[in-house]
Amino acid sequence: MELLKKTVDSIGEPDRDAMEKAQERLNSLLKPPGSLGKLEEIAKRLAGITGKPVNRINKKAILIMCNDNGVTEEKVSSFPAEVSALVAETMLKGLAGVAVLGRHAGADLRIVDLGLFTDIKTPGIINRKIRKGTMNFTRGPAMSRDEAVKAIEIGIETALAAVKDGYNLLGTGEVGIGNTTTSSAVLHALTGESLDILVGRGAGLTDEGLTHKKDVIRRGMEKNMPDRNDPIDVLSKLGGLDIAGLAGCFLGAASARTPIVIDGFISGTAAVIAAAIKPAVKEFMFTSHVSVEPGTKVISEYLGLHPMLSMDMRLGEGTGCALAFNIIEAATKIMSEMGTFADIGM
Amino acid sequence: MELLKKTVDSIGEPDRDAMEKAQERLNSLLKPPGSLGKLEEIAKRLAGITGKPVNRINKKAILIMCNDNGVTEEKVSSFPAEVSALVAETMLKGLAGVAVLGRHAGADLRIVDLGLFTDIKTPGIINRKIRKGTMNFTRGPAMSRDEAVKAIEIGIETALAAVKDGYNLLGTGEVGIGNTTTSSAVLHALTGESLDILVGRGAGLTDEGLTHKKDVIRRGMEKNMPDRNDPIDVLSKLGGLDIAGLAGCFLGAASARTPIVIDGFISGTAAVIAAAIKPAVKEFMFTSHVSVEPGTKVISEYLGLHPMLSMDMRLGEGTGCALAFNIIEAATKIMSEMGTFADIGM
Repeated sequence: MELLKKTVDSIGEPDRDAMEKAQERLNSLLKPPGSLGKLEEIAKRLAGITGKPVNRINKKAILIMCNDNGVTEEKVSSFPAEVSALVAETMLKGLAGVAVLGRHAGADLRIVDLGLFTDIKTPGIINRKIRKGTMNFTRGPAMSRDEAVKAIEIGIETALAAVKDGYNLLGTGEVGIGNTTTSSAVLHALTGESLDILVGRGAGLTDEGLTHKKDVIRRGMEKNMPDRNDPIDVLSKLGGLDIAGLAGCFLGAASARTPIVIDGFISGTAAVIAAAIKPAVKEFMFTSHVSVEPGTKVISEYLGLHPMLSMDMRLGEGTGCALAFNIIEAATKIMSEMGTFADIGM
Repeated sequence: MELLKKTVDSIGEPDRDAMEKAQERLNSLLKPPGSLGKLEEIAKRLAGITGKPVNRINKKAILIMCNDNGVTEEKVSSFPAEVSALVAETMLKGLAGVAVLGRHAGADLRIVDLGLFTDIKTPGIINRKIRKGTMNFTRGPAMSRDEAVKAIEIGIETALAAVKDGYNLLGTGEVGIGNTTTSSAVLHALTGESLDILVGRGAGLTDEGLTHKKDVIRRGMEKNMPDRNDPIDVLSKLGGLDIAGLAGCFLGAASARTPIVIDGFISGTAAVIAAAIKPAVKEFMFTSHVSVEPGTKVISEYLGLHPMLSMDMRLGEGTGCALAFNIIEAATKIMSEMGTFADIGM
């Protein structure tokens, strides 16, 4: 609890002076004002985050939190829970979507096991297991409040370790069959948004499966009665260790004034939790893409962020971050490499 | 006229067999079917274009056509015509937006002067000047039919030369103050879409400027009476040499079965011209982003293509292509690098 409190207290505001200097430079570049749209917005926000008007991305990492969800007992996913460990293994072997797209973006992966049912043998896994899977939230809380705080703190530590190792652009990803169910439940409890808007087909549910998934969440709400004004209460009762760990990543990155990218629905839910704990954390986040999962729009609106990509993706894992990294890097290069009107004597 | 005819005749259909093989591979990859969205769609369309289920991008180029528009006499732009040559110079010097973003994407630029008022001295310019600027279309046709065909053929030659030099992913860009006016006019004449939907603020017009721009286009329509069933008639009367050259790039790339990316409003208008000449050319195109120019939506719908990026950009030059290149390359890598269910014994 101490690390969480210390981290939250240390998250500051964007550096308005650096943002103003960035805006001045943007206005001096060889283009009609504002014509590079979100690239300019990104460049300016980066200045606010780092305190430097012109930035350079040195090393990129996607932080991936793994967990198994007890609620998979209720058959809310088209895949069995055993697939989680398998997906984590394929990431470590470089064969998963995020491994391929991360490599393409020049990004490293840091894969943390917070709560898989089975243990991963493949080298490279970061074992910070808190428990072997969460509980089925239709029967009681998914985890204790202490466990949720512990997972958040491991997320904070993961982000801080990455920053210490020289990574200055972070992304977020996750592994956990059933985590669109836990995410929808958390968002529903926290924002009051209707389940019809929040609940999607995840990895490929039928119409019947979709109705069942909403019903399971309703039962979880009735059983646990989460307090919507207490994000950690909501998280521990209906969430997962992956969401908790990622919420910690957002808080940790913000405390280290390092930009961090939201992937899709699950990491977006974690971002909402982080913002409910400390609103200023939003200023250090970027969204990547509009996922097919309908709840991602609710997340972007809650956070006041504008996705860059419209790719109809819904794989998760951190795949959207990998694509967004290239764009964020492009934004730094317009600042450092474009000519100015002064350069050409105008 | 002979090269144009030969090129149009040689444009074939997508290779359905290769697309089917690509779809089989996509289905075998370690992910829920379809969960990589447009990345999968891009990979499949590339297979149709090249005839190979798995593709690899070797070299990338953005083909940039430069022209000055006589209609700038009517003060339809917030910049004077002299700025066109200046922009081309900054591209050649590596200082323009497309130069920076092209470098970031690992793409080369090929900058062709088809009709700038002034001559470019900076090394690297490809001088294929047809005339020094087009005519003011409120007083008569912007150019002769022969000149329009000549510009299309230079575009074809530019694309074919790039393919011969080993480039297997092409983009399109342009320089030409006033070319959102010529593009709006061409699209209006060709599609019948209302000017209120098609005409935007270009590089930064006021409300008054916007009304004036529409009025100038209406005068051009009345003066020239273009035949909407004859795309080359529309192009020569209301278009520019940049649009004509880019239409040729699309036709040339398609005839060489090479993927080519639309940037924004002007290259999109050229793509519509190319598709009006030969509908099958659409199958070889990709759109990059939804520009702020409102007409880009009309273009995407006409071509049946789905932009990948939502960046609020409106610089043109080819900047959107540079960002899209990274995504298209990512799509090739999921095909060549992701593991399959068979790989992990499932």
